[in-house]
Amino acid sequence: MISAQSPQVQAKPGPDFNLRGYLEERRTLVEAALEQSIPVTYPEKIYDAMRYSLMAGGKRLRPILCLATCELLGGTIAMAMPTACALEMIHTMSLIHDDLPAMDNDDYRRGKLTNHKVYGEDIAILAGDGLLAYAFEYVVEKTENVAPEQLLKVVARLGHAVAATGLVGGQVVDLECEGLSNIGVETLHFIHSHKTGALLEASVLSGGLLTGADKETLQRLSRYAANIGLAFQIVDDILDVTSTRDVLGKTAGKDLQAQKITYPSLWGIEKSRQEAQGLVDAAKDELACYGERAIPLQAIAGYITARTH
Amino acid sequence: MISAQSPQVQAKPGPDFNLRGYLEERRTLVEAALEQSIPVTYPEKIYDAMRYSLMAGGKRLRPILCLATCELLGGTIAMAMPTACALEMIHTMSLIHDDLPAMDNDDYRRGKLTNHKVYGEDIAILAGDGLLAYAFEYVVEKTENVAPEQLLKVVARLGHAVAATGLVGGQVVDLECEGLSNIGVETLHFIHSHKTGALLEASVLSGGLLTGADKETLQRLSRYAANIGLAFQIVDDILDVTSTRDVLGKTAGKDLQAQKITYPSLWGIEKSRQEAQGLVDAAKDELACYGERAIPLQAIAGYITARTH
Repeated sequence: MISAQSPQVQAKPGPDFNLRGYLEERRTLVEAALEQSIPVTYPEKIYDAMRYSLMAGGKRLRPILCLATCELLGGTIAMAMPTACALEMIHTMSLIHDDLPAMDNDDYRRGKLTNHKVYGEDIAILAGDGLLAYAFEYVVEKTENVAPEQLLKVVARLGHAVAATGLVGGQVVDLECEGLSNIGVETLHFIHSHKTGALLEASVLSGGLLTGADKETLQRLSRYAANIGLAFQIVDDILDVTSTRDVLGKTAGKDLQAQKITYPSLWGIEKSRQEAQGLVDAAKDELACYGERAIPLQAIAGYITARTH
Repeated sequence: MISAQSPQVQAKPGPDFNLRGYLEERRTLVEAALEQSIPVTYPEKIYDAMRYSLMAGGKRLRPILCLATCELLGGTIAMAMPTACALEMIHTMSLIHDDLPAMDNDDYRRGKLTNHKVYGEDIAILAGDGLLAYAFEYVVEKTENVAPEQLLKVVARLGHAVAATGLVGGQVVDLECEGLSNIGVETLHFIHSHKTGALLEASVLSGGLLTGADKETLQRLSRYAANIGLAFQIVDDILDVTSTRDVLGKTAGKDLQAQKITYPSLWGIEKSRQEAQGLVDAAKDELACYGERAIPLQAIAGYITARTH
């Protein structure tokens, strides 16, 4: 558990790079920005519901990827923070809606009751809608020192990552495949590259778009993101098999109960670990051309396979 | 029932203005653009579900308001059409989610089965999410010949109109008030100015923003929109009491069954009609300074109180 105290660290890329300190520093900055992002007003219940899930913890990986990519390409944290917050609002929306009884029907998320268990299904649906819509308003209203053309590209990419071309499409195929035992690896890749990968890719790409990155750079960032996205999912699947509920903060073994096809069920645990490691290595290689500046994003890639929860 | 055939009319503002022909012409243009807006690809089910509700008819009032306002201020239909489509996608999302069992639990909408009755609750939730996210991508990707700064303002306004500051906030208060008999007119105004009014206002304002309208113009457009929005809701409430299901295409008398407070229940039918007429007259007056160019928007205002379904 990383402390939420104000960080003393000034984690900089370099030979002594301290990933733990870096993640703690960034997570604290993101938490502070998120805390300010949704003031509570009438009707309080919906703002409370949005804040309940938005402030329920988590690694804040998407915002941190956005900030890190923006900095890699010469941008600042300040430029990227509204987009970083918008990414977390969108991610939170997807969790709230995925947990609904009509979807995955989860009672717990990050060790706390899910949104609909606290506020009711109606408010949970609306809290998701509200977070999604507000993310777009927020990124436009709060971003400074970014060219309008570039900010428009960020908006379009965020939309693309959530719509049927992104996480909505992934969730649909995931629901369709539930209980089926003859799912191939292509379908599993489709589910995860859309359900999880699309927003991770948008997190990295938006950090690049804010700085006006060229096409070649954006393609490199996409490949980095696709690799870590898939690795992330494989590790998630492995952890679902090997972890207990206390560590995960959600119901473990749930994929198995729901008879979901996972990477370990297709490949076994050992091959799944190897594949994840190969993807992480490829992701790191994509950014080798940036030298020391790439250390944070490379270390984040490594962290994905090393994590235990 | 207005025909969906390609229009022969070239309805122009002027003394001989033909509102029926104008609405038919614009509705046909909007239908054609919407038809093209969502191509079907894998996974087909979610695209089918989005298209099912998006192409389920309706007056296309929000898109038409956006186009008309853009033209009033010297812009073109082509400039505004992507925003017009995005407004209809957002409106459709709100209908799909409002109809869900956890919300208003409606089986019929515009004479057809509601989205979740056809595709299931899970897909209906995701179809709404998909439409909302895609609306933002679509407006950015498809809009041409508009200054990026102005397009960003359109994006922010769309987000504001849906979030807790707009229709989500209105729906929350509406749900909270269900079954309560001591709701005052201020609360009823809040519900409708948010649940219905916010997106109507965004329809009109976005048409203005696309042309780079100044602050004074935008304020005038806001007042026009607020007046027609409230008038629209009052007439809806009256029609719920006086119409039958065959005409409305939805379950009539539903407000009464659900014990919802409405304008007729607060004021009676006659005073409600008078209030709606007063609001329409005020809306028309706001645009008097534009002379003949304002005739379409003024006629649309008049149409709201004259409509019978």
